[in-house]
Amino acid sequence: MEIIEGGSILSAKGFRAGWSRCGIKIAEGEPDVALILSDGPASAAGVFTTNRFAAAPVQWNRGILPAGDLRAVVVNSGNANSCTGRRGAEDARTTAELVAELVGCEVQQVAVASTGFIGRPLPMERLGKGVRAAHGALSSDAAAARGAERAIMTTDTRPKACAVRGEIAGRPFCIGGMTKGAGMIAPKMATMLAFLTTDARVPAATLQRLLKRTADLTFNRITVDGDTSTNDTVLLMAGGASGAVVEKGSAGEEAFEEALQFVMADLSRQIVRDGEGATRLIEVTVSGARSVQEAETAARAIANSLLLKCAIYGGDPNWGRILCAAGYSGAHLRPEGTTLSIGAVKVFENGLPTGADAADEVAGTEVAIHLELGAGDAQATVLSCDLSKRYVEINAHYHT
Amino acid sequence: MEIIEGGSILSAKGFRAGWSRCGIKIAEGEPDVALILSDGPASAAGVFTTNRFAAAPVQWNRGILPAGDLRAVVVNSGNANSCTGRRGAEDARTTAELVAELVGCEVQQVAVASTGFIGRPLPMERLGKGVRAAHGALSSDAAAARGAERAIMTTDTRPKACAVRGEIAGRPFCIGGMTKGAGMIAPKMATMLAFLTTDARVPAATLQRLLKRTADLTFNRITVDGDTSTNDTVLLMAGGASGAVVEKGSAGEEAFEEALQFVMADLSRQIVRDGEGATRLIEVTVSGARSVQEAETAARAIANSLLLKCAIYGGDPNWGRILCAAGYSGAHLRPEGTTLSIGAVKVFENGLPTGADAADEVAGTEVAIHLELGAGDAQATVLSCDLSKRYVEINAHYHT
Repeated sequence: MEIIEGGSILSAKGFRAGWSRCGIKIAEGEPDVALILSDGPASAAGVFTTNRFAAAPVQWNRGILPAGDLRAVVVNSGNANSCTGRRGAEDARTTAELVAELVGCEVQQVAVASTGFIGRPLPMERLGKGVRAAHGALSSDAAAARGAERAIMTTDTRPKACAVRGEIAGRPFCIGGMTKGAGMIAPKMATMLAFLTTDARVPAATLQRLLKRTADLTFNRITVDGDTSTNDTVLLMAGGASGAVVEKGSAGEEAFEEALQFVMADLSRQIVRDGEGATRLIEVTVSGARSVQEAETAARAIANSLLLKCAIYGGDPNWGRILCAAGYSGAHLRPEGTTLSIGAVKVFENGLPTGADAADEVAGTEVAIHLELGAGDAQATVLSCDLSKRYVEINAHYHT
Repeated sequence: MEIIEGGSILSAKGFRAGWSRCGIKIAEGEPDVALILSDGPASAAGVFTTNRFAAAPVQWNRGILPAGDLRAVVVNSGNANSCTGRRGAEDARTTAELVAELVGCEVQQVAVASTGFIGRPLPMERLGKGVRAAHGALSSDAAAARGAERAIMTTDTRPKACAVRGEIAGRPFCIGGMTKGAGMIAPKMATMLAFLTTDARVPAATLQRLLKRTADLTFNRITVDGDTSTNDTVLLMAGGASGAVVEKGSAGEEAFEEALQFVMADLSRQIVRDGEGATRLIEVTVSGARSVQEAETAARAIANSLLLKCAIYGGDPNWGRILCAAGYSGAHLRPEGTTLSIGAVKVFENGLPTGADAADEVAGTEVAIHLELGAGDAQATVLSCDLSKRYVEINAHYHT
């Protein structure tokens, strides 16, 4: 497997992308519509928010996936089409219909995603113009991918993309993706959109299984603020143009899963790195748990602790707050078997502080925390970021 | 029932309090040892942190309660005696022994509480001097209560006390209390210490039942940052000096419970009001849930949402974030039966935004949020506060 320098959703053969500015996004002049088109029907898989107020586009996608093939995904930023009732559902469908008409496919072959303000109806006239413009601009050039990456951003400060090349039975294939995140990143996804393409041929059922399993290990193990949005969506389209075929249970499936996991893990890390106001990435690994679930529970409690996130922002290796969070997480642990390292420094060993100073270990842009619970063999890693005054500023004045 | 102006832990007859400065607390000159003494054996009840790293004093108290009577409670601030291993347990016991010797009672009649830094051994020589000085200063004057209230503070900006007078079968009784909180206030208590006294006579089993039930409705329904500390403790001593007797299942029990609930609710509110960096109190009521537990789950998710807490800080009535938090809480709801009011303004009704502007409703120091889930008849209220840049400052630079 090989990382593709400057890779994108267009690294895989058989896809084109387009984008436009239609004025939905508040920052004038920013692109806000993206379109991804597969040259032919692509098998598809999706994972979505667990929020009970799932937005209209999420409900639309749940209706068409994972049974059917996809030809296109249309995305807008600036308006989430969430809490918009029946009108929101109609608007999602209308948007899919427009794309289907432009592309010449079934409406069920068009997925829809939105991100931005909640509770406002989509400005359909503008969006219609934007979708037509994005369709008119469809291209397989790298510049088209870069535009699409920008068009899905909200409070992100930079576009996020990744692609890799692998091989199945001598045939090369690519997986590429783009994502947006920044705030409301939490357990079970976030205001997080991710779109992935591959030119491998993968049966829909296999694709769905691999996507779900990989999402649980990547996008579902990052947190910025513990909030899960109404719009979280990860979509993967497999067009098959490379000729590489993923057969269930084969070595090819392993190669494909490895590549998928790399791309999704890389995109997840980019989201946390660009967390609202974040100055440091925090990688929390919990080992010695009775089960992976308990390891994840403890890691998540640590990763979400406001007190710890503030301490890391302040460059304070506050191990008491780490233990405290593990202690209230509900995960089983043996206090006298607990050992904690911050970076390379062991600060707590078998239930007692060592007195070692870990200040240097939290001074950089990445902080590694490793807590051993002494209760079993399972482990899990969750990525988080620090909590800065800038986060509060951004979210105190975002707008209703 | 009547509120006692300037009431305290000494409003109930038969108690004395003392305090001293022994230099455990970093801010020099601040009082850091408090002692509460019951003239005779008092029946006692306690509720404690659920954190698996329960601090040494919590473990000591669990060992002596609720079976036995208490004569005294000794408290220090500045050092939590948490994550201190076997030495911590010995120090908690040694402190109780010293008080028992000074007071002339059994060591099992002395409860111990600590709050402050985690993972440092208690400076026992200083503490010993402080305990002797506090004992020497024991008094039933209001000034003694005021000093004790200050001695238990950490990042609190003001002392917190409340007392009421009630009547059972023509005999008046008092319940008074003091508390400290500020940060790490969360589900299932917080770095929260509360000490309550009453001159009613209450059997220990009844006292424990009433304290637990009331704590679940008051101290366990407040949140500042979602972190649950290793030291949370609520202790209630009933000395009986008033002659009022609480009999199980009697009207007197109801009068006592009403008074207890008033005092504990008032103290809880004072904690949230003084939340680290807080500028506004947020009262979240969720109704229309299938069960009280689901109502509480939804209210807690809203109360803990960083995004909402930041919005309220910014004076932004961001109803999308409220719905979003309810949506991911796991509580059952009917989106089309959901109605949300901020203060007196209905912003969302039966699943759709009303368009009404609630900006004036979040401009004051108290913000009321009422969400109807449309799924049942149960309701619950949780108190929270906004998240300010000051909170981040305080916790970025508190110290390890």
